[in-house]
Amino acid sequence: MERVTRHFQEELEALQGRLLEMGGLAEERVRAAVQGIVSRDVATVDQVLYGDEPINTLHIEVDERCFKLLALHQPMAADLRAIVAAVKINSDLERVGDLAVNIAEAAKRYVMHAPVKKLIDIPRMGSIAQSMLRDALDSFVRRDMRLARQVLNEDDQLDGLKTQIFRELLTYMLQDPGTVEPALDLILVSRHLERIGDHATNIAEDVIFMVSARDVRHQSSILDS
Amino acid sequence: MERVTRHFQEELEALQGRLLEMGGLAEERVRAAVQGIVSRDVATVDQVLYGDEPINTLHIEVDERCFKLLALHQPMAADLRAIVAAVKINSDLERVGDLAVNIAEAAKRYVMHAPVKKLIDIPRMGSIAQSMLRDALDSFVRRDMRLARQVLNEDDQLDGLKTQIFRELLTYMLQDPGTVEPALDLILVSRHLERIGDHATNIAEDVIFMVSARDVRHQSSILDS
Repeated sequence: MERVTRHFQEELEALQGRLLEMGGLAEERVRAAVQGIVSRDVATVDQVLYGDEPINTLHIEVDERCFKLLALHQPMAADLRAIVAAVKINSDLERVGDLAVNIAEAAKRYVMHAPVKKLIDIPRMGSIAQSMLRDALDSFVRRDMRLARQVLNEDDQLDGLKTQIFRELLTYMLQDPGTVEPALDLILVSRHLERIGDHATNIAEDVIFMVSARDVRHQSSILDS
Repeated sequence: MERVTRHFQEELEALQGRLLEMGGLAEERVRAAVQGIVSRDVATVDQVLYGDEPINTLHIEVDERCFKLLALHQPMAADLRAIVAAVKINSDLERVGDLAVNIAEAAKRYVMHAPVKKLIDIPRMGSIAQSMLRDALDSFVRRDMRLARQVLNEDDQLDGLKTQIFRELLTYMLQDPGTVEPALDLILVSRHLERIGDHATNIAEDVIFMVSARDVRHQSSILDS
């Protein structure tokens, strides 16, 4: 039994290692996609467009590891919550990878037009989304509720920037029809980044549930109580 | 043991019943949101905007039921796969509920402007997304791989319509700056509907994995082999 337990812990750590690896890849792809649109660098954009295989491979591997852990070890309580959280986090990270592709698709169209403006808020949103992702995964591995709560708060910043970008670009579009197409793509990019923040938020909520066995979803008003 | 097994099956059926109920609510909210924008009916839009509590309550309940089933019955093989699928489907349905709210938010802004055009493709996308959702959940309950595969195929239609809507609205925006704001919201609505189709696709993929223990994600080319 001792041996089984130790084996379980090793497997659980391996699983977490895979999720961290996947998170690192996802974060890097978001960074590259945003970098590509900011510096109008088609080669970087193409790398994101055609490089989603490593994340997809990890996505399948993590799911298999979760099944194996559930089937062979029949974990209880905190261990069970950790594995169910891993199943969900795995889906979230895979979507983040897809959203990086969506950003790259918009970037590919964007660079075909003259720049609408110097991009300041988009890379800012990108940094926030990346740091939310990183913090959410760190909070998972370290079972750190405080850090998880911090991620939930950062989401508001992302939301504010998205609204600001929308208003600003709308002004450009109304004044100059020549900006309609590229501005539209910037709006889409800001929405994709917002969604990446939503996935980081999902992960943080799963961590809070895992650690506290308390469900904080759908009750954001009492989060800091 | 016999008794435990029977109890497990009853609980599993109750869980499926809850997911179906949640799917019905999600589908109805998508229908109402699209109906609201097509008929420019603010009361219907408001119902969607402020009516997400029942789905959110079910979301938490379903998660709890999954945990209980895993912890108390330690299911194996097909039963284990069914519960892990339920965990994922639960997340997908909750997101669909959120996307209905996003559609309603765009609808609320849209009705403040003169209509850009008669809406034909948007309600068509809405019907397809709804039927994909319904089929995906039916395929889950009936363990019907054929139906699940059909859902994967329908997603292409949704994608095609989204691209068509985008091109058409872009033309309007370029010709008449007065259409920029409402056309932008229609584009966002079409993206939300596309994402609802993506969630139905996720559910169908989970069903295929659950039934066949074979992972069809990230390899769409061999789906019909």
